[in-house]
Amino acid sequence: MAMSSSSAIRHHSHLTAAAVEAAPLRERRVSSLINIPATLSNLLHLHHERNPDDRSVGLPPPAVGLPPPAVGRNTPTVSPKEDISSLFPEIYGHADWSPLLNPLHPWLRREIVKYGEFAQATYDAFDFNPLSEFCGSCLYGRCRLLDKLGLARNGYRVSKYVYAMSHVKLPRWLERSLHADAWCTESNWMGYVAVSDDAESRRIGCRDIVVAWRGTIAPTEWFEDVQGKLKPLGDAHSDVKVEHGFLGVYTSKSDRTRYNKTSASEQVMEEIERLVSHYRQRGEEVSLTITGHSLGGALALLNAYEAASTIPDLPISVISFGGPRVGNVAFGEKLKEMNVKVLRVVVKQDMVPKMPGILFNEGLKRFEHVTGTLEWVYTHVGLELGLDVRSSPYLKHRLDVAGFHNLETYLHLVDGFLSSDKEFRGNARRDVALVNKASGMLRDELHIPPRWAQMANKGMMCNAYGRWVKPAREPEDIPSPYREEAQL
Amino acid sequence: MAMSSSSAIRHHSHLTAAAVEAAPLRERRVSSLINIPATLSNLLHLHHERNPDDRSVGLPPPAVGLPPPAVGRNTPTVSPKEDISSLFPEIYGHADWSPLLNPLHPWLRREIVKYGEFAQATYDAFDFNPLSEFCGSCLYGRCRLLDKLGLARNGYRVSKYVYAMSHVKLPRWLERSLHADAWCTESNWMGYVAVSDDAESRRIGCRDIVVAWRGTIAPTEWFEDVQGKLKPLGDAHSDVKVEHGFLGVYTSKSDRTRYNKTSASEQVMEEIERLVSHYRQRGEEVSLTITGHSLGGALALLNAYEAASTIPDLPISVISFGGPRVGNVAFGEKLKEMNVKVLRVVVKQDMVPKMPGILFNEGLKRFEHVTGTLEWVYTHVGLELGLDVRSSPYLKHRLDVAGFHNLETYLHLVDGFLSSDKEFRGNARRDVALVNKASGMLRDELHIPPRWAQMANKGMMCNAYGRWVKPAREPEDIPSPYREEAQL
Repeated sequence: MAMSSSSAIRHHSHLTAAAVEAAPLRERRVSSLINIPATLSNLLHLHHERNPDDRSVGLPPPAVGLPPPAVGRNTPTVSPKEDISSLFPEIYGHADWSPLLNPLHPWLRREIVKYGEFAQATYDAFDFNPLSEFCGSCLYGRCRLLDKLGLARNGYRVSKYVYAMSHVKLPRWLERSLHADAWCTESNWMGYVAVSDDAESRRIGCRDIVVAWRGTIAPTEWFEDVQGKLKPLGDAHSDVKVEHGFLGVYTSKSDRTRYNKTSASEQVMEEIERLVSHYRQRGEEVSLTITGHSLGGALALLNAYEAASTIPDLPISVISFGGPRVGNVAFGEKLKEMNVKVLRVVVKQDMVPKMPGILFNEGLKRFEHVTGTLEWVYTHVGLELGLDVRSSPYLKHRLDVAGFHNLETYLHLVDGFLSSDKEFRGNARRDVALVNKASGMLRDELHIPPRWAQMANKGMMCNAYGRWVKPAREPEDIPSPYREEAQL
Repeated sequence: MAMSSSSAIRHHSHLTAAAVEAAPLRERRVSSLINIPATLSNLLHLHHERNPDDRSVGLPPPAVGLPPPAVGRNTPTVSPKEDISSLFPEIYGHADWSPLLNPLHPWLRREIVKYGEFAQATYDAFDFNPLSEFCGSCLYGRCRLLDKLGLARNGYRVSKYVYAMSHVKLPRWLERSLHADAWCTESNWMGYVAVSDDAESRRIGCRDIVVAWRGTIAPTEWFEDVQGKLKPLGDAHSDVKVEHGFLGVYTSKSDRTRYNKTSASEQVMEEIERLVSHYRQRGEEVSLTITGHSLGGALALLNAYEAASTIPDLPISVISFGGPRVGNVAFGEKLKEMNVKVLRVVVKQDMVPKMPGILFNEGLKRFEHVTGTLEWVYTHVGLELGLDVRSSPYLKHRLDVAGFHNLETYLHLVDGFLSSDKEFRGNARRDVALVNKASGMLRDELHIPPRWAQMANKGMMCNAYGRWVKPAREPEDIPSPYREEAQL
């Protein structure tokens, strides 16, 4: 094994990342034969990291004669930022996204990844631990959320957290503490509102308000639980109909709760209105970008619909990842009419975007004379950026329902996407290891452990007296309905 | 839930740890009724830890009116050390252990826990990760093993590591790297030799050489794989017979390996002889204490047998935890004849000490006229310290084969043992949370996560460039056959 792998590296060391990028699809067949992943793994120094002054004892010396890697362990995971303000209407879809999608414009790719990271933050910062008294909350206080997750570089500031009731019968997004002194058993942290800082606003050409919605993790349960019951939006006679479960998450509230005396809808709309009014008073251009993965993608659409109804002249775009269908044809047409721009990033192999409505969906349009008005049929909205798991040489291709739906898989594929007929981008810089944070999608040759994101000792720490204890959350990370009050 | 639990605490707050310690078995029935675990959890501050200056926001204030806890989060996990040199022959079994066992003498209890911690170190420091190139080795270099595990306080220095071949067909103790550049695929780290420093030697009354043997984790596979084939020890016609699998681990070697050109037996005996000779030349009293859990307990007996045969005048004791039977009656009698002192710590509910020989064992002695010489029958050796899972108010009592066998369960029960007819020791200081390091034996009321011992992000770390990488082992922790040379 050791011999064959190292000789593979020697023979193909001329195959640099740049060469890989340029290779058209036909050559890719060849490059799979010569074991690209092992080569890339080596180029990326993924399988083990050494200190520069490391005098390894008892190990074979590192292979010599390799060209300097194009993307190595010392390469930052993002390219230098460029001023994209000249293209703002195109990048944000308010003109027309289509010309920028295939091939994918590098500026747009970068922005899609940025919003995907905002959506990913809602998973990375969520307290899933049922033994935690704060299960279902965000692990970090609002002011340092992005900093804790290494996203401060994106140049945004979180201005409000949004909560939704967890009694709604929807699969697996609700988490409830088993702890007797739980912070709250009725609500879950459901996302946040953030706003671009001055530098980022200048760079993109607009003061950007972001809403990021948390989604679900396990798509398998969708099959059982998303019944696909359409329900009128607004008054009972409305043509516009949406999935009743999604609507339930978005609109439920109860006076007896601490975090949902108002619904997620009311919380988020109040904050959007406040921010829009604040920045417009300063004479600034303001836009709203709503993002989310999975269920979060559905909530993003409901949120966009409401925002467009409430603030008609606000430029609104939705960038969703692996989102399901949300409403009927009338819902989609109304969104279009209100000028809401929707970009759906969809992995071909992912099941969730096929739901609800696997049988009854927009594909029935050509039978409209049979089905009537399609009032009771689900439809997707907006433009689709289609990704293919098989395009990445880093990923396993075998069936993995959870892995295909994983947001990090999406972000990896966006980062490597050049166009629908091109090879995976060889100089993609985003850290490939992230794919395996919560999945096992990476090929074994990369030696990245599957599902590696885990807390040291499940949060237990040894104190100065030698006892293993669960440290209390730091005061600024403890949820509080009072502290959640928005501030600029 | 919150109400009933906090009122339970209020009603029974007079039940201090000291009161619990004194309570005889009859009263325990009562104390189980009044939910002792919740009370203890509160006294021990196990369920959440606050900083002294913690101004909790959004949480109920801590319950007031509780008596100062006897054992709290600020209590060290060990009592101050006492000079036990006056009782050295008794504590180390060279006189007679029996009078100290029931009730258990506190000095002896402390020493048993010390050796149990040495055995536990072989698990805590073992690299189980098949994606690691060092899978099957010790995570830390010899010189800092005890320090890394917080055992430096025991006053010992590791002088040598011992390796055994991993091809031996025994259940689950072998670990092999899937990594192409693995350090070694034929051998596993199997234990270590350590020696007491000057201060500890003065305290206990002797220069103490310790051998700690690593054991197995999962007892379920014992049933399938330990066939119980007795094999003569020494020459083929010897009366003394031992389990052939244990003997295989202890004696296998091969010239084609890096770590087992000599067997575990040869490695450990060479080091013992070297240390004995070194300290005897300085005119010191030297003793040998061999410890191990599970399979490690079996190896400890084989090691003691060989050491007693090789160095007849060396005081030798074995303190084993959950060890299986190892040999026949002649093996046991020969050990006794050679004056090897054996203390077997055994949890009643643990299956492993019942094996091999569940049907054919020393219990057949009274049928000796039927079975003949018992040459082919397994027997236990030495004195037994019997522990009972049900004695601890912290533990679940339901069937848990792995949990009953877990070494941390053993150490917890030793720490709480007063005598066979007494309540669990209320002022036991050893950290209860350790029980759940690799099991789920602790009662849910304690809110200690099950199997909490885990590495942060499975060893992945984010480097300065934002990439998640597996850092190389530090050079001093990389196994090397050259560096393993023993040094004083």
